[in-house]
Amino acid sequence: MSKTKSISWFYENLPEEQLIEDRFKTTIKSSYTLSGFSVIDTPAIERTETLLSKGSDDNEIYGVKRLKTDDITDFDMWLRFDLTVPLARYVAQHEWNLSFPLKTQQIGKSWRGERPQKWRYREFYQADIDIIWNGSISLFADVEVVSTIYSALNNLNFGDFLININNKKILTGFLESLWIDKISETISIIDKKDKVKTIVPLLEELPLEKNQIDSILELLKISENQKGLEVLSFFDNIQNEMLEEGIRELTYIYSHLLTMWVSDNAIQINPAISRGLNYYTWLVFETFIVGNESVWSIASWWRYENLCSNFSSSAFPWVWWSIGVSRLLSILKSIWSIQTGKKTVSDILVINTGSNLLPKNLEIVKELRKQWISTELYLDENAKFSKQIKYANNKNIPYVIIYGEEEDEKWIVQIKVLESWEQKEIKIWELNKNLFI
Amino acid sequence: MSKTKSISWFYENLPEEQLIEDRFKTTIKSSYTLSGFSVIDTPAIERTETLLSKGSDDNEIYGVKRLKTDDITDFDMWLRFDLTVPLARYVAQHEWNLSFPLKTQQIGKSWRGERPQKWRYREFYQADIDIIWNGSISLFADVEVVSTIYSALNNLNFGDFLININNKKILTGFLESLWIDKISETISIIDKKDKVKTIVPLLEELPLEKNQIDSILELLKISENQKGLEVLSFFDNIQNEMLEEGIRELTYIYSHLLTMWVSDNAIQINPAISRGLNYYTWLVFETFIVGNESVWSIASWWRYENLCSNFSSSAFPWVWWSIGVSRLLSILKSIWSIQTGKKTVSDILVINTGSNLLPKNLEIVKELRKQWISTELYLDENAKFSKQIKYANNKNIPYVIIYGEEEDEKWIVQIKVLESWEQKEIKIWELNKNLFI
Repeated sequence: MSKTKSISWFYENLPEEQLIEDRFKTTIKSSYTLSGFSVIDTPAIERTETLLSKGSDDNEIYGVKRLKTDDITDFDMWLRFDLTVPLARYVAQHEWNLSFPLKTQQIGKSWRGERPQKWRYREFYQADIDIIWNGSISLFADVEVVSTIYSALNNLNFGDFLININNKKILTGFLESLWIDKISETISIIDKKDKVKTIVPLLEELPLEKNQIDSILELLKISENQKGLEVLSFFDNIQNEMLEEGIRELTYIYSHLLTMWVSDNAIQINPAISRGLNYYTWLVFETFIVGNESVWSIASWWRYENLCSNFSSSAFPWVWWSIGVSRLLSILKSIWSIQTGKKTVSDILVINTGSNLLPKNLEIVKELRKQWISTELYLDENAKFSKQIKYANNKNIPYVIIYGEEEDEKWIVQIKVLESWEQKEIKIWELNKNLFI
Repeated sequence: MSKTKSISWFYENLPEEQLIEDRFKTTIKSSYTLSGFSVIDTPAIERTETLLSKGSDDNEIYGVKRLKTDDITDFDMWLRFDLTVPLARYVAQHEWNLSFPLKTQQIGKSWRGERPQKWRYREFYQADIDIIWNGSISLFADVEVVSTIYSALNNLNFGDFLININNKKILTGFLESLWIDKISETISIIDKKDKVKTIVPLLEELPLEKNQIDSILELLKISENQKGLEVLSFFDNIQNEMLEEGIRELTYIYSHLLTMWVSDNAIQINPAISRGLNYYTWLVFETFIVGNESVWSIASWWRYENLCSNFSSSAFPWVWWSIGVSRLLSILKSIWSIQTGKKTVSDILVINTGSNLLPKNLEIVKELRKQWISTELYLDENAKFSKQIKYANNKNIPYVIIYGEEEDEKWIVQIKVLESWEQKEIKIWELNKNLFI
């Protein structure tokens, strides 16, 4: 007999856990769809040259090869390691059959053969949304994408989360106004803002002057004490072109986000965050579960001037956000130990009372399914009542319906609520979905 | 620049085609769920030894390997080539955490590196349902599975289809009653029933006598002329134990299928079909699109006494049906050239009338999304009206909403139906989903 193990760090769920993962994926998909992001579904496998184009770390990649081919040393296909490179290839390949701006979503698996780490799997789901343009991309695209991610996370209903938002033009302009030369070095230090004690000596070393350091420390504090656009009043008396532009853009995004769904409890302007120094992304975001800020960001984002530079001579500016579904679920499990409920999709088990009554049992099943309630009849008509109840109990099916000889005579059905063991009799024609909540 | 091609025989859809594939998958999933089949989702990759267990054709299999490992000759992981071997491994691995009978569904991709063929891809979706027991499996399991597949196919609403059904006990018993010895050889010949002319010489060669051959030819005709259980009246005067058992079982299944959803136009008893000689599956099915019977079966089935024989010492009898989603779509495209409609999920484009009116445009978007209508605002507030209309036209978005200066003064919105170019004015507070059908 073979080993009965899946491969390590490739996870799979029991049916009761899968119900939760499925609810997550369905909720995210419907949130994305409501905002007009169309589904795409690219192959799991790409040509090596396609994936190589991004210059990624080969070590993490799974090569794919037909068995029994002559040349075994050469991998001409790889499993995708994210959904972005396939998207770039897709857009370039189908450019003339697509209309831009293009809004897409893809919820799919990717594979990375990396070293096992907490909250990371080697096979994992991401739920991406992308806006791809062929021209220049408007600031409003960010409003659309952030409000969509917000409503997806909000609809998942897992607890409070906070999206920190900044425009690095503000940070840069502010440092300019302090007459600091080494702006990128300073930003790198500020980025470690969680440990104020470690920042000061580093800033002194640069060297910055005391009044410059004091101003930076003030900046680090403002988003702790103030909320909403008020945060930006800190910069009221500073004149700097880049700063002012940054404030205009951020105000635009923030206020339109509020006009949409976004709650002001879930979004915080934080002029101190920078997340590295890539100048293509002036806007920066960090998304955390409230109370668990030390845990990695639960949603990622990117903005790039040209998605398809490796595949096409046209320029495709691009905005991307992604919810790491597998990672988010694994984080939530570890901090809240998610409660599983039913071990099956069924809401109702109809007891199979067999032979003559089987057609009437089936009529009940048919009626309930017609009303869109997941219902099953116990599969063995010879099984004892107690065995059938035990099955419902094992699977945490909430309701059991009994229609036996006695019920048949009286034209009634018995409905048993398994949790409370309560039972009620109703007339057969009263059976409808409102009895099962 | 790299080649911008996906790999041949790995298909991917444009957004408008993907909408159809998505509708197929969603419909099938909800049909399966309504019947109480729980979702599982096993990894795409299995250990080589797991997949080898079934003794399949290595040539068709894709090996998987981390790049940059020392030993490049040895594949210890393979991409799955169906959803059944992973299911068998899953059941054996999690045996003690699962409750039986277990009803599962899995809609997922598999990979086969086979020779390109019409209607076959190398990466394809199947939608499986399985009932796995740990004991013996009831005949009612077949009723449950067939009625579920029927309702899934019926809900897909692609046209008429017919499920041919037989119990090979009937065919075997019938041949016994004719005193034929070479039963399996005879069944093999009858299996070619489409060409009656070729059957007779083969039966003569066996050799069978003229009256035996005549009786067989009569058998081949009955399902052409009769419907429902009447087909079985052909056997009324024949006494044979196996035949009678077969008729009892088939009558049981057929009549319970009718009690459930199944239309008698969609199911036909056909005592002549056999589909090979595997004695584990007395019941046989063939599912065709009406008018396209020459095309391969659009749904497959299997019944086996022990799913997990390679992985577990427990016996797990098993019933399986599967809809080949990618193949079905590809067949439907080739026979009916499926019409695509919208090129996006959005039902409404709200014209972006910009600056001061942007917040009010957004209010409209928010309200429509709250009512669960996929809505988007054009992403660029500086784009001309004609450009925005062109975008809606290119994507076949059915409705456009306009809220500009003039509408703002009058507290109205304009709704334009793009197909007919009709336009109507409504008061802003009258905006609701019933206006968009």
